[in-house]
Amino acid sequence: MTYRAPVKDMLFDIEHLARIDQVAQLPGFEEAGLDTAQAVLEECAKFNEGVVAPLNVDGDKNPSSWKDGQVTTTPGFKEAYRQYIEGGWQALQHPAEYDGQALPKTIAAACIEMLNSANLSFALCPLLTDGATEALLTAGSDALKDVYLRKLVSGEWTGTMNLTEPQAGSDLAMVRSRAEPQGDGTYKVFGTKIFITYGEHDMVDNIVHLVLARVPGAPEGVKGISLFVVPKFMVNQDGSLGARNDVHCVSIEHKLGIKASPTAVLQYGDNGGAIGYLVGQENRGLEYMFIMMNAARYAVGVQGIAVAETAYQKAAAYAKDRVQSRPVDGSVNGSATIVHHPDVRRMLMTMRALTEGCRAMASVAAAAYDAAHHAADAAVRQQNQAFYEFLVPLVKGYSTEMSLEVTSLGVQVHGGMGFIEETGAAQYYRDARILTIYEGTTAIQANDLVGRKTARDGGQVAQAVAGQIEKTEGELARSGSAEARAMAKRLAAARKAFLDVVAYVVKEGKAAPNAVFAGSVPYLMLAGNLVAGWQMARSLLIAEGLLQKGQDAAFMRAKIATARFYADHILSRVPGQRDAIVEGADSVTALPLEAF
Amino acid sequence: MTYRAPVKDMLFDIEHLARIDQVAQLPGFEEAGLDTAQAVLEECAKFNEGVVAPLNVDGDKNPSSWKDGQVTTTPGFKEAYRQYIEGGWQALQHPAEYDGQALPKTIAAACIEMLNSANLSFALCPLLTDGATEALLTAGSDALKDVYLRKLVSGEWTGTMNLTEPQAGSDLAMVRSRAEPQGDGTYKVFGTKIFITYGEHDMVDNIVHLVLARVPGAPEGVKGISLFVVPKFMVNQDGSLGARNDVHCVSIEHKLGIKASPTAVLQYGDNGGAIGYLVGQENRGLEYMFIMMNAARYAVGVQGIAVAETAYQKAAAYAKDRVQSRPVDGSVNGSATIVHHPDVRRMLMTMRALTEGCRAMASVAAAAYDAAHHAADAAVRQQNQAFYEFLVPLVKGYSTEMSLEVTSLGVQVHGGMGFIEETGAAQYYRDARILTIYEGTTAIQANDLVGRKTARDGGQVAQAVAGQIEKTEGELARSGSAEARAMAKRLAAARKAFLDVVAYVVKEGKAAPNAVFAGSVPYLMLAGNLVAGWQMARSLLIAEGLLQKGQDAAFMRAKIATARFYADHILSRVPGQRDAIVEGADSVTALPLEAF
Repeated sequence: MTYRAPVKDMLFDIEHLARIDQVAQLPGFEEAGLDTAQAVLEECAKFNEGVVAPLNVDGDKNPSSWKDGQVTTTPGFKEAYRQYIEGGWQALQHPAEYDGQALPKTIAAACIEMLNSANLSFALCPLLTDGATEALLTAGSDALKDVYLRKLVSGEWTGTMNLTEPQAGSDLAMVRSRAEPQGDGTYKVFGTKIFITYGEHDMVDNIVHLVLARVPGAPEGVKGISLFVVPKFMVNQDGSLGARNDVHCVSIEHKLGIKASPTAVLQYGDNGGAIGYLVGQENRGLEYMFIMMNAARYAVGVQGIAVAETAYQKAAAYAKDRVQSRPVDGSVNGSATIVHHPDVRRMLMTMRALTEGCRAMASVAAAAYDAAHHAADAAVRQQNQAFYEFLVPLVKGYSTEMSLEVTSLGVQVHGGMGFIEETGAAQYYRDARILTIYEGTTAIQANDLVGRKTARDGGQVAQAVAGQIEKTEGELARSGSAEARAMAKRLAAARKAFLDVVAYVVKEGKAAPNAVFAGSVPYLMLAGNLVAGWQMARSLLIAEGLLQKGQDAAFMRAKIATARFYADHILSRVPGQRDAIVEGADSVTALPLEAF
Repeated sequence: MTYRAPVKDMLFDIEHLARIDQVAQLPGFEEAGLDTAQAVLEECAKFNEGVVAPLNVDGDKNPSSWKDGQVTTTPGFKEAYRQYIEGGWQALQHPAEYDGQALPKTIAAACIEMLNSANLSFALCPLLTDGATEALLTAGSDALKDVYLRKLVSGEWTGTMNLTEPQAGSDLAMVRSRAEPQGDGTYKVFGTKIFITYGEHDMVDNIVHLVLARVPGAPEGVKGISLFVVPKFMVNQDGSLGARNDVHCVSIEHKLGIKASPTAVLQYGDNGGAIGYLVGQENRGLEYMFIMMNAARYAVGVQGIAVAETAYQKAAAYAKDRVQSRPVDGSVNGSATIVHHPDVRRMLMTMRALTEGCRAMASVAAAAYDAAHHAADAAVRQQNQAFYEFLVPLVKGYSTEMSLEVTSLGVQVHGGMGFIEETGAAQYYRDARILTIYEGTTAIQANDLVGRKTARDGGQVAQAVAGQIEKTEGELARSGSAEARAMAKRLAAARKAFLDVVAYVVKEGKAAPNAVFAGSVPYLMLAGNLVAGWQMARSLLIAEGLLQKGQDAAFMRAKIATARFYADHILSRVPGQRDAIVEGADSVTALPLEAF
């Protein structure tokens, strides 16, 4: 199977849900209309289908390897990466000031999906570079920006995020790495960082590590963490590379999936101290790190969509090829391709509906991000920022959780062949398994959704989202088609369930934190089901309208059928999730610790 | 982490749910009371914890390997297998006539769970031998029984099931292997069989292949398939081994999981024909194969429970050890073990509730099997057989699907460490992924549930089960505890949803097969949720009673809490499943084939 970028579906979302015409009215995005989106996506599809996707299986079979502190990537990766930066793909969403292309996230997100569909392991390197770029853009001094940003935006150098230590995973308060000021504006950094994606590799000349560490006398906990740039090679005044810095890769992990992506253990300062440069102010590191984490969280959500898409394509191709058994309705006299069998259809439709729903949600979130950063009006910016921030844990948490379901179904569609590694379906199942963990586990996303995104504002943004959904229900009622009515029914039930949960979270948040957090992940799943379903509902209405105009009938009919499936089979999960959250909290924590 | 067999929970099920006292009243099982069960389970636990479990990780790291037609198993497997047969574990559930121990399935099932928890790959060899034993017991001639059964029952030789061919997986009508009668009562078998578990290995001197093939002039389709015994080595009159037969292992598969279990491609007859012996009558092979498949399906369901149990134990141990973050309720001043965090508790409780629910369901099914085979009264036998047959697709389909959820949660509890292979959680995730596929995919189980087990008798057995459940609801109402009331509410809602679906399946089965089969797997999942939940409800009542008597308070309280969790968080899924089945069938098949 060859990956084919779903350009048509992406453009449907970009045009009709994310409303690229409105994005193109934002200051700075005047050139970024539908035509631009289409041109960029088509070019991007060509590159990823042709150059990056063919390396995906190689990367799994022949992962990155470590020897004497050096990491050698899978043969072909270095050359593909060279083409990636030559094509300007790293620069897509970054500011023109640093030689970026300054495209809206609405367009860039689709490109990022393609890169990840083509090769999740490969795509992680650019993903981390984007995060480092964001952090420097937001908090870096002009001097730091001058030295590093153009190189990161072009992709000539890559970036990393160094948060985790053996004792500090989800809990960054436990970070122990330290940075000692040298009196000349630089610091010497000491410590061990683990799980550092592309922490060492051979695709570029220099790696820019962004590292959390404590300065002497810093407060305990998360308020005493500072952020530093620690380059692998020092950079001379003229921009050329100088001495090797004292940061070394002592090993890489043997992982379940994304094997081509080296996950490094980095040792800082074993030979006198790694030279680091403070980003922003001391003790505000976590705040800056959250900037890059939010960018990265959105991107990891897109990874979920990306791997789900590839798993779907592979399963659909197999189902249309593999002949086995007579259809139950007797429509074929003899054995038929397995796509004729209702349960295979159910699996494929589940994969497709979840993938399209999450893509639509991510696309809408990207447009909100663009408006939040570019709208002229401050109130519009603020409103979009709030909406975007509400969506980030859903894009990250829900899209990645759904990718586990989708990649598992992808194996199942293949039957016994799915369990054989050569088939390739199992790689998606393995690769996807990290997505609900890194850049904040689903529980961490859910804590964010419960705490910062729901309880803090008394549920205002959540209720505003529900209000928007109710409007869509009205439009569905006016359409009156069987599909629209089925969708309206499920959407309304899901929205009401959501409002119940929001009220519960707001009311009990302080009084009964255990009860509320016992339902945090179910709340995230419920909200993701609903918001992605809402976008499918909007898609259904738009597709009905375009179908009436005679536009691309096959595509529109498929979109309507997929939306209807989403309503019947995904949105129908929501009321039960509500019951578990609102009525089932006590039983989550009833068992005493010693009974486990 | 070391696997600890959950002997206490198993004995609870065996004593109170499966009612070993009643099993021990069946002719032939007079010795098989609770004391026997306890003694056997404790001995079995010791063996599996001490001998088999320590090889589990080795098997994954150093799988079976193939060279020149020979398969070498993981170092240590051969010796462990020797101890396994020396301990008499293979003989547990087989007839005394062939030197078996003739224990009820009610006891044997728990032992099989332990073996599988200890090492899924290792346990597959005995599992297949059990299947071959069943087939020969049912349909073999006395001559065949005399030659093979004692060796299989003791485990000195192992058995295989040869169904699948490249073009014939779920669809056995496509089997092309052929068997030519030689005029002397033997046949020469030709063909290629794939996915043959332990089709070749070095743990025993002889392998007894049970092979589906067609005789000349046989009808097309499944009614023209015959079953043959093809030994790896011919057996002389005196029982000694003779010439090598013409069946050869040409390769083994490179798989996602259960890597230590060799999955062979077997070539029959490349050098003149493999000598085979007909089992039973010509063209009735599928019927016999179903006997061994039904035994194997139940056992694969137990594999799901087994791997879920191990995944739970590992995750619980990690959660009680790993320190990270302050509890949201402030109950600990500073960082605490992650088992303090509500979402970790939710994950562990989900794992535990699903595992215990499925174990309870399997235990009750085993007791029904015993009564179906041993009860003096024909009506009792028949009733139990019908109940057992209804449960088999649930035990197989539901327990294995739930094992995917549980092993995935097991990875998630470990966070980033879960993705590192050395941790071990990922192995369960990979190993479990075959369970919903082999011995009939979940869809095949669901077809069985819909067709043979529900539609065929007009829903009678299903309704009888619902009637039993309603009685349990009455008992819950009489208990009146908060837990019992919560359970009663969810159980009643789930039962009603189940009855709706049963009515739908019965009514539409013939008129709208696509619609009914579109909901077949959701129906299986719904029924599994319900029936396992029903057993948790019974457990809750029993535990309440024993708690009042002061018996093992900690265990009983944990059982009650786990049952309550099951009600709130698993049974609450059921009404939505009903909606998807009964109201969502059309959207499963709405998308035209070319749109995928």
